[in-house]
Amino acid sequence: MSKRILIVGGVAGGASCAARLRRMDEAAEIVLFERGEYISFANCGLPYYIGGVIPKREMLLVQDEKTMHAWFNIDIHTRTEVTAIQPAEKTVSVKDLRTGEVRSERYDALVLSPGAAPIVPQVPGLEEAQGRIFTIRNIADVDALQEFLTATRPSTAVVVGGGFIGLEMTENLRRRGLAVHLVEAAGQVMAPLDPEMATLVHAELRKNGVDLHLGSALAGFENGGKTVVLTDGQKLYADCTIMAIGVRPESGLIKEAGLAVNDRGAIVVDDQFRVKGADGVYAIGDAIEVRDFIFGEKTQIPLAGPANRMGRMVADIICGKDKHYAGTLGSSVVQVFGTQCATTGKNEKQLRQMGVDYQSIHLYPANHATYYPGASQMSLKVLYAPADGKLYGAQAVGKDMGIDKTIDVIATAIKAGMSVFDLADVELCYAPPFGTAKAPVNFAGYIAENIASGEGYFDDTPHLDALIAQGATVLDVRGKKELERVPMPSTLHIPLPELRSRLAEVPADQPVYVSCMIGVRGHIACRILQGHGIDAINVAGGAKLYTQSHLS
Amino acid sequence: MSKRILIVGGVAGGASCAARLRRMDEAAEIVLFERGEYISFANCGLPYYIGGVIPKREMLLVQDEKTMHAWFNIDIHTRTEVTAIQPAEKTVSVKDLRTGEVRSERYDALVLSPGAAPIVPQVPGLEEAQGRIFTIRNIADVDALQEFLTATRPSTAVVVGGGFIGLEMTENLRRRGLAVHLVEAAGQVMAPLDPEMATLVHAELRKNGVDLHLGSALAGFENGGKTVVLTDGQKLYADCTIMAIGVRPESGLIKEAGLAVNDRGAIVVDDQFRVKGADGVYAIGDAIEVRDFIFGEKTQIPLAGPANRMGRMVADIICGKDKHYAGTLGSSVVQVFGTQCATTGKNEKQLRQMGVDYQSIHLYPANHATYYPGASQMSLKVLYAPADGKLYGAQAVGKDMGIDKTIDVIATAIKAGMSVFDLADVELCYAPPFGTAKAPVNFAGYIAENIASGEGYFDDTPHLDALIAQGATVLDVRGKKELERVPMPSTLHIPLPELRSRLAEVPADQPVYVSCMIGVRGHIACRILQGHGIDAINVAGGAKLYTQSHLS
Repeated sequence: MSKRILIVGGVAGGASCAARLRRMDEAAEIVLFERGEYISFANCGLPYYIGGVIPKREMLLVQDEKTMHAWFNIDIHTRTEVTAIQPAEKTVSVKDLRTGEVRSERYDALVLSPGAAPIVPQVPGLEEAQGRIFTIRNIADVDALQEFLTATRPSTAVVVGGGFIGLEMTENLRRRGLAVHLVEAAGQVMAPLDPEMATLVHAELRKNGVDLHLGSALAGFENGGKTVVLTDGQKLYADCTIMAIGVRPESGLIKEAGLAVNDRGAIVVDDQFRVKGADGVYAIGDAIEVRDFIFGEKTQIPLAGPANRMGRMVADIICGKDKHYAGTLGSSVVQVFGTQCATTGKNEKQLRQMGVDYQSIHLYPANHATYYPGASQMSLKVLYAPADGKLYGAQAVGKDMGIDKTIDVIATAIKAGMSVFDLADVELCYAPPFGTAKAPVNFAGYIAENIASGEGYFDDTPHLDALIAQGATVLDVRGKKELERVPMPSTLHIPLPELRSRLAEVPADQPVYVSCMIGVRGHIACRILQGHGIDAINVAGGAKLYTQSHLS
Repeated sequence: MSKRILIVGGVAGGASCAARLRRMDEAAEIVLFERGEYISFANCGLPYYIGGVIPKREMLLVQDEKTMHAWFNIDIHTRTEVTAIQPAEKTVSVKDLRTGEVRSERYDALVLSPGAAPIVPQVPGLEEAQGRIFTIRNIADVDALQEFLTATRPSTAVVVGGGFIGLEMTENLRRRGLAVHLVEAAGQVMAPLDPEMATLVHAELRKNGVDLHLGSALAGFENGGKTVVLTDGQKLYADCTIMAIGVRPESGLIKEAGLAVNDRGAIVVDDQFRVKGADGVYAIGDAIEVRDFIFGEKTQIPLAGPANRMGRMVADIICGKDKHYAGTLGSSVVQVFGTQCATTGKNEKQLRQMGVDYQSIHLYPANHATYYPGASQMSLKVLYAPADGKLYGAQAVGKDMGIDKTIDVIATAIKAGMSVFDLADVELCYAPPFGTAKAPVNFAGYIAENIASGEGYFDDTPHLDALIAQGATVLDVRGKKELERVPMPSTLHIPLPELRSRLAEVPADQPVYVSCMIGVRGHIACRILQGHGIDAINVAGGAKLYTQSHLS
């Protein structure tokens, strides 16, 4: 007899799973339940539809029900909610949201791909503000916002939350002509970035007229939602508020069935997506707890890429393939007006929290040949284990091109188990419009090699002032004009070209911290000093990183 | 006593080597000889200077002599030629090209980075054509061409050779308003691509008004160079001719010193760049024979990226580091008007020649989310070992973005020893403007998995017609309009949505080749047929690849 497989949730993971299941098993009965109106819509495109970048609503509907059925013979039920699971009986209760009818459906395998819902904090005034508060999760959400924007032509929006959705909504509401207040409880937007990288995004937001409120959370609404009150006491006028604080796994169903959910509400699964204690039940996507690829700890990483891969993999597993999910790396990218930021793996905040020994490096390589018009410097940070060079993560922020590429190469290197030293020899494509003969990742490898060779490297820029206060020597080797243009503290100034002839001026009785604009000339100067027996330490990222680290 | 290190050649490899040497050894005496006027100029930017993309000549001068000396304390001699090596004495003969003076210089280490010179075939009429014939290797070359273009305002150019330089010169001369004939002796331009990929470049060239002569070589010049005669008898009018057939290692010096040069003139070195039989002599860059990274055979791959890395590595080796060059992969990218092509590793032509067992796959993934404006399909080909999935190489051709990124990820995977199957799980950054939730490399991994699972895959499109002539069944599962829009031969037509209900029409007594537009629906149809016991084989790349393979 053929298998009966039920899938709960028809977007990313669920839809991928259904299609792959059919390709693996022509005979299986595959039934897909989707609470919403549509399956397989472009959830990551929703902000761009609001901004008009994606001009037509139907462009969001990636795979329609009819085609999905015709190609894959999937029995699709939209506007249908699975309201309960009976694991012992291998049945689920299903409610038709159009008719209200409830029925029971049996399964041999059940795949839960319910996703995660936007968090809406229960602040004072919330209820009275309804109609002015929006979330961005599905087509119904953007329909509602679109209607509001068209009907009321609002002038001002508050976006609560500076993550992916918050940033993309900010950009797209600005594109639509609204004044935007972006409110973020943390001291920075874009949590996957470390603070000194996030300041670049802050600058870009401000440059584009966004009123940025950092370190301040939503406290409540007044005036029927037209006044947004922040925890720091500020009151912002708002025609509407977008809630983009984060998401919460839609795991109610599984919790009620008495199955395993972690303390943050994520469904607990093994490396084959099996839900413990429930034979034939699998869960995938944003609702589950995943293994972190690098350290193996349990975490939650709600991203579309992994959800899609899980959908395919769980289908293979249900059809008898011995596959195991190796964990999620958390590679991501976001566009914020003219700035792009991409990250993969762990950041410094996380490593510090975990108590892991790490080395960080900062560099400013060009995204393509500098003599070819349009080149720009990216800000790249790489984190790795000092002992063996094991790659922990990377962050890149920049303009135009090369940001996603650089992080994709590092993400691939991490997956492959390459060390930071291996990056020195990675051989990438090069032509002037596309890259540089020595790619950004090559430079990262070079710097790591230099550090491993015993070269001093100071990557703690925020504490440079304290060092100086304690009497350290900081030698700036830039030219005079550069010093004026991008100031940073130092105790001694000798331009690199004069260093060899002015060595006598450099105190030799204590380590000399050497800085320049981005760390390149600092490195050269360190090697000169070291060659003359002076203990020299290169200040990572020079004045650029210093400036960046002191912005808010 | 400090080491005396002489470097011959001040571009890519030589300049990198000099700078790294100094950083490794502050005390060494480092002397750089460069025959030309400039060190460290942007050789890869030369075509773009001719086209005006790089508007100013000084932008080509990446690192000037003065800075190089001031930063690195390198003793630089431009317009100085090393005319002979005396390996036994560890001396070289050096000629000052300004004064004609010859002197002897001793070395502890000698690094040869002479590069490779454009090949100019000795055809009839060559001499009379002088003044109209140009090569593109250095600043003097582009100065001469620039002067010619400015002074004579020519209308027509012939570019001989469809490699990187030939293609870039073609684009840039068109940009400058010239009519361009591109002459290529082989049946295709851009040798690293396989023929069915190169046709996309041919189409782009023709679309941009280039008169393309394939399979026809330069036979000679008449009329003082104003008539270019081809081997097929055609005569082309030309105000000027650019010679971009290829390059020949500048190994005369080493040959004359009685040292090892291979039959194609490349300097033979070990994996530490040591020239055999000459203590303290090293060679790097375009002039040497390199180890191919994948199979280890000896070859020549003149590219800027590897040359730069060799420069750094040989400096480390000279300074006592135990480094070994693992070989060159040959990652490259070129822009041809609105088309970009990137490649890494081996192509099918090479694998066939080597008699290696390989599997090739063709796919047409989108460069970013299709619902986000500006998405385009790229043509991606991946080659690997059927037995273990070892990656052999990849080629991508497309528009806009994602071409270099896709190949860079695969190049990294190859370097890391990942298999094609590992590509399925690579986790790349995704947001609608940058990529797709399932990246092109993920799809490549999926297809390879499917093939390994025993799914039939036919990647021999050029022979599809022969198959049909032999009585094979070819089932096209596209819609009627698609069939008309992009025709390809078939013996049976059932649109995918109707396949399950029309199974009886499919002959079950022989394998069924299934085709569609790009191979996606073909795969689904194959799975349906196989699910019903019919032997089905997916025709790789469907009508798109068929069309591409039948273009010239």
